[in-house]
Formats: sequence, structure tokens, C-alpha cells
Amino acid sequence: MVPFKLSKELISEIQTLIVARQDGQLQAMLEDVHYADVAEIVNGIDHIKQATYLIKLLDSDKTSDVLTELDDDLREAILKRLSVKEIADELEELDTDDAADIVAELPPERAKKVISHIEDKEHAKDIIELLRYDEDTAGGLMAKELVQVNENWNVLTCVKEMRAQAENVTRVHSIYVVDDEGRLKGRLSLKDLLTTSTKTHIKDVYISNVDYVDVNTKDEEVAKVMSKYDLEAIPVVDEMGRLVGRITIDDIVDVIKEEAEKDYQLAAGISQDVEADDSILELTRARLPWLILGLFGGLGAVFIMQDYEEFMSNPELQDLFFFTPLIAAMAGNVGVQSSAIIVQGLANDIVKGSLWNRLLKEVGLSLINGLALAVLVLAFGYIMNYDISFSLTVAVALICVIIVAALIGTFVPIVLDKRGIDPAIATGPFITTSNDIFGIFLFFYIAKLILHF
Amino acid sequence: MVPFKLSKELISEIQTLIVARQDGQLQAMLEDVHYADVAEIVNGIDHIKQATYLIKLLDSDKTSDVLTELDDDLREAILKRLSVKEIADELEELDTDDAADIVAELPPERAKKVISHIEDKEHAKDIIELLRYDEDTAGGLMAKELVQVNENWNVLTCVKEMRAQAENVTRVHSIYVVDDEGRLKGRLSLKDLLTTSTKTHIKDVYISNVDYVDVNTKDEEVAKVMSKYDLEAIPVVDEMGRLVGRITIDDIVDVIKEEAEKDYQLAAGISQDVEADDSILELTRARLPWLILGLFGGLGAVFIMQDYEEFMSNPELQDLFFFTPLIAAMAGNVGVQSSAIIVQGLANDIVKGSLWNRLLKEVGLSLINGLALAVLVLAFGYIMNYDISFSLTVAVALICVIIVAALIGTFVPIVLDKRGIDPAIATGPFITTSNDIFGIFLFFYIAKLILHF
Repeated sequence: MVPFKLSKELISEIQTLIVARQDGQLQAMLEDVHYADVAEIVNGIDHIKQATYLIKLLDSDKTSDVLTELDDDLREAILKRLSVKEIADELEELDTDDAADIVAELPPERAKKVISHIEDKEHAKDIIELLRYDEDTAGGLMAKELVQVNENWNVLTCVKEMRAQAENVTRVHSIYVVDDEGRLKGRLSLKDLLTTSTKTHIKDVYISNVDYVDVNTKDEEVAKVMSKYDLEAIPVVDEMGRLVGRITIDDIVDVIKEEAEKDYQLAAGISQDVEADDSILELTRARLPWLILGLFGGLGAVFIMQDYEEFMSNPELQDLFFFTPLIAAMAGNVGVQSSAIIVQGLANDIVKGSLWNRLLKEVGLSLINGLALAVLVLAFGYIMNYDISFSLTVAVALICVIIVAALIGTFVPIVLDKRGIDPAIATGPFITTSNDIFGIFLFFYIAKLILHF
Repeated sequence: MVPFKLSKELISEIQTLIVARQDGQLQAMLEDVHYADVAEIVNGIDHIKQATYLIKLLDSDKTSDVLTELDDDLREAILKRLSVKEIADELEELDTDDAADIVAELPPERAKKVISHIEDKEHAKDIIELLRYDEDTAGGLMAKELVQVNENWNVLTCVKEMRAQAENVTRVHSIYVVDDEGRLKGRLSLKDLLTTSTKTHIKDVYISNVDYVDVNTKDEEVAKVMSKYDLEAIPVVDEMGRLVGRITIDDIVDVIKEEAEKDYQLAAGISQDVEADDSILELTRARLPWLILGLFGGLGAVFIMQDYEEFMSNPELQDLFFFTPLIAAMAGNVGVQSSAIIVQGLANDIVKGSLWNRLLKEVGLSLINGLALAVLVLAFGYIMNYDISFSLTVAVALICVIIVAALIGTFVPIVLDKRGIDPAIATGPFITTSNDIFGIFLFFYIAKLILHF
């Protein structure tokens, strides 16, 4: 199978066929194309009417999956152009978790109408149940499709029942075993099924040691459990221990990716959920607040320096002002480094030991880094013929600034995390800005102490 | 099942048992604990001799998996204390991909001896084969364990063969179909197997439309394909199209996580692969180079400002020096934002359209952001009683600096990516430092143009 490659030519060819209403040719052309690839094509069609035409033309068997893969804005626009019956038909084809995600995007009134048009009432009931859970919990991630057997069945009944259930499940990972009340008791692996005689009783063969999560477990926690134990699916139970759904690893891959991307974006000073192809307005909304924060930091620094205006008229001291960007940059860089290491350590659960030990370690680390950088500053001063006391002042101030910046960078995320706030907001502009101000304040204060008296 | 929770008490209890040589009690205590949890315990024992004792004590059935989950440094230390025979026994229990990863960490001479002690010669052969591939390719990720059937078999032979093969495979995802030369032809899903009559011929039922990757495909590319098509396993073929292995999603989760963490660390100015609990020396090695880069940037700014020393003696112009940290910070922040959006867009393949359009969009975006920030600067100047021409100069310079910083932040990662260099190095200290210098240069240059003549 040749890997699919999206090209401008392909998209314009398809657009030409849409304009010419060559339905047969379009259907034939896209029949063997994977839905994820069709979604890429539809994303590439810069024309909502044409995109909607294509969605209506193709089998809802395929377009339902296409819809789940589309860019959010485009999906919203297309859903607006579909009738409630058409949307219901698409939902009919989807697993409950994907269907619930789409219903959640519709206006409440429309969602109600769409659900009433779903013919499979069991499916509709499942979707409504899933809508009740928060997006970022196990309940919001799970699908109702799973294969379950009763512990009191024998293997014969079990296989017969499983065949029927498997028809509705895209991928069978595990067969879950429940008791008469529907409470999760354990699991049967498909492998066991392949290698076990068909005459055995379920009660005697199932594995009782099964990992599970609660409907209210946070998605990040689910991701941690699944990746720690290398699980490909995990059952979800309700408050009474009853099996109500299962989460598969592909949904968790998205959680892990989003989590890591969110930290990165916060560190870069962008609100989450913007992408390169969003509109200028959306991008401005994501970026400007952090820039304004940075601006206030810079204006704060102006304030601080004004207190030292007298230095300007002193030929020996005025050069200090040349070093303020350096001091601010080093304070910012060190702070971001320290906080990033802590934030990642917290995310991966490897920040152990007491806060004091950690701060002590940062002091040691910054002393080493600071001394190395101070030597470079002294060398620079020597080459530039600076007065030795001036160079020493800059060097000493630099070391102090680095130590304080590292401490702030370590302390803030740990404290935020303890208070239940996402520590990642402490990397990026927040820490850079406060460290800029602290750094410059400390720099001039130390300079005054050493040089001015 | 109660979720496992690591505690200091548990670790010290286990250490006490180790010191007292209470082997039976230790074995009983850890028997039902998942290997990933045992690995957490071993990671928590801050004493290599005790950790090694525990590894030697437990069944190699479990400890082999524990070894794969340990911190790299600890594993290396423990492997040094195991005999070649003991290591070979552990490898015997592992899937070929995990075994090969461990062998790759051993000194070459020792690796050779260990392999010669593996009793299962097929297993040893497979491990040696895997060692040939680069770590970051599909060949380096894949395992040899898989279930394959010949297209010419009938279902009866097939099921018998599969049962035998399945014994060696931890999880059966798909049954791969090959021809007489071992070339990948397609797959059979386990679900099909559950729902198909046993009398059918393989040739007539297999699905020929199967995704696969080449042994030389880069790991990032494998991750993209698997997450795009929601695959839980993908077969790997060699240059002749022969089925040689398969990659499962849990290995890909690690690739995705590492990839995202790497970008984050680069943005924060840390070389990859350090963690909060690494030694001060390792952390210094990861952090100091970027700080030195930042220092040189700061010293460059000193150079630039010295050219404008004359401004110091002019009461109207000297205040410009108060604004250099602000200018540098804004240039840095804007550059990091722009580059982060591009880097993430490149990683997710959503940076489409021409470079010129993208740069044009950034100019528009920075103009809006710049104007908003300029208004704030003018307001600040008004409050502070600055001369209007002075405030205007700072505001105009700020807008220019932001536009240039955004252009650099967009241009550099795209160009790096086109040249095959990881664009993520363009976020973080690299872009901050160069934007600091550019920004300050531009600031004084524009100020001179407006104010000085």
C-alpha cells in the first residue's frame, strides 16, 4: 500500500469534480482512501459549501469518521449545513464516545433534536449518558462499546454472547467479567481464549487482578495509569463499582500529546489551543495578554532604574546600564530552566524529597553556573579595560541574581503544584517577567552597596 | 484492586527486610505487586547493593520487566553487579525489543558473552538482528514477537499454528498474513476470527489493505502514522517487503512523550535528557551552555550600547537606557511565541501555504500586538511626564522591534526545518538571545534617527 500524500493537485482535482458534480467519479476515487486521509482532503478544501457537498456525497459509514478528524471550526461549519436527520445518521455509525463529542459541540436545542432522530435507542441512551460526564474525566473519555461476560456463564454461552457483542466493538482488547449486579470482577484476555479449552467455566479462568479507573478520575491520571502499566484499554466503573465503559489507548495518546503541548505553549507564552493556521484575531487573543504582562515587567524595571538615575552622571557607574539586558536575560533564562525541570519532574512524578533539599541543590547548581559565568564577565571586563572593581561588581551581582532566579524558578512551581494549580504557568513569561524585575533590582542594589559607598 | 501508592514507609520497610535477609517475607510481599510498581520501589531504594539484592531475590519472570522500567543510571549499576548468566536469564524472559535495548547498554565484550549464555537460540538470533538497527528507526523500535500465518493455509492449520505462536506474544493485535517468501500480504483481525467460520481459507478472508512501515522509517514518522490512523500495532517490513517485526502503541507513546518533552526542554534552554533528580554535574552540563550563549548575547548588547554612550550626557536621551530590558524582553517574548507556534505547527504537519504568506500574517499579527503595546507605553509616558517625542520614539521602536522579532521567530524554524534540522532549537535561548541583540540595536538606531537629528 502506497502511503497517502496530500497534494495541492489532488485537492484542486477534487474541487473540479465537485463543481462539475461528477458524483460517481468522486465516490470511486475516494472509496479506498482511509478516513483520516479523506479528512485531510476536506480540511484542505478552502470552501465550506464544497466540503459539505463531499461529506453529503460519501457514505456516512466513512464520513462519520471523517467528521471526528476534521478541524474544529470546519466541523462546526459543516454540521450547521447538515440536517438533524443527516447528523443523526452520522452518529449512528460512530462509537458512543466520538458521537458524544460531536453532540457536545451542537447547540442544546439542536442536540436534543439530533438525538431524537437516532434510530438505535440503545445507542442514543449511551450517548446521553456520556454527555453527563466532564470532558476531562474518565467518564468523558470512555466509550460504552465493550465486550463483557457474566462470571456465572460457561464458556459456550460466553463465546456466543461475545460474538454478538463484538459486532459493535471496533477493537476487542479484553473481555471484561462482571457479576450479576454488573460489577467488574476481572478480565479474560483474547489470548487466553485462543489457548483455552472451550469447556471451561468463566468463574474458574478469569483474571481477577484488573486495573480500572473511576468515572471521575481525571484524564491526566488515566493517562499516567495506562502508560505506567502499558495498558491498551482500561475499564471504567461507576461509584458502585459497576462496569460502565472503557477507554482505549488512542484516546489517551491525544491526552498525553495535548498535555505536553500545553506545557510547551505555556512556557512559550501562548494560551493553549491556538495553532499556526488560526486567525490573526485568535492568535492575538492567545498572545497579547502575555506580552502585556511582559510589558508591565519592563515598565517596572524602568521604575527601578529611575531610582539610580544619579549613576548616569558618574562616568564610573554609568556603564552599569549597559549590563541591564544581560542581567535580565540571565535571570530569565535561569528561572525558566529551573522551573521547566521542576514542571517536567512534577508531571512525571519524580520530584521527591523535601522542598529544602531541592532548593539547596538549586543553590549549589547556580553557584557553579554563576561562578563559570562570572569568570567570563571578568575576562570580558579585562579585555574591555573596565575597572576591576566595576567588573567584580557585575560578576558578584550576576552570581546573586542567578541564585535568586533559580530559587524562584524552583519554589514557585512546587508551591503552585501543592495548591493544585498547574505549575506550568510558572514557566514562560510569568517567571521571566518577575525574574527580570528581581534581577535588575538586585543588580543595582548590590552595585550601590559595593561601588557607591 | 486498590491502586498502588509508593511511600517512604514502604521503602524503609523493604530496606529493613533486605538488611535482615527476610527473603521469604520479601517475596511474599512483592508477589502480587505489578512490575512497574516494583520498579518504583527499586528506584526509591537509595542503595545499589540493596537494590541489586532485591533484583536477584525475585523471580526473573518479574525482575526482567522491572529492569526495563528502572532509571537508566540505576539499571546500569545493577547490571554491572549481575553475572552474564544472570543477565542472560533476564533477557530470556523479555520480548526481543526490550532485551535488545538492555543488551545495547552493555559494553560490547560483555554483551557478546551475555548473548552466548541465552539458551533459546532463536531468541538470541532475534536480539542480535534488532541490535543492527538505529535506535530511532522502526527497526530499533520493533519486536520480533508476532503472529503470522501463510496465505495458503486453511483456517484449521492457521488456528493451530496461531495458538503455538501466541504463547510467545504478550498481546495479539493482528494476525499478519504472508506469502511463501515471507512478504507481508495483509492481516486478519482477531474480531474476524471470532466471527468467521473455521472452514474458510486464509487467502479468501484476509484484508489486503494493511498499513506498514519500513525498518528504516524514523520513529517520529512511525508515531505520526500510528496516531493518524489510530493503530495499536503496525507491521514492519524489510527492503524486500518481508515481514520482520511489529511495533506496538506503548512504545510509540514513549516516542510521542519524549518528542514533546524534548521541544519543551529546548524551549526552556535545557539539553534533553536531564531530569530533576539527576546530579548537579549532569544538570550543569545541560544548562550552562545555553546560559553562556545568553551571556554572550548580553555582552553583545553591552557592545551595541557603548556606541550610544553619548546619550548618557543628554538628559533627554539618557532615559532610553531604562527601556533596554523592556525592549529586550518584548523582542524575546514575541520571538519565542512565534517560533513555538511554528515549531508545533511543523510537528503536527499543519504549516501549509507559502513562506511569504506566513511572514505576511506575522507582520499583521505583530502590528496589532505592537500597536496595543505602544498605546500602553504612551499612556505610561504620559503618566510619567515624559516628553511626547520621547514616548513616541519608544513606542515606534517597540512596534518595529516586535515586527522584526516575530519575523525572525517565524523564519528561522521554517528554514531550519527545510534544511532537515530540528526547528525546536530555534525556540528558547537561541531566539531570545538573537532577538535581544537585534531588538536593542534596532531600538537605539531608531531612537537616533528620530531624536538625535
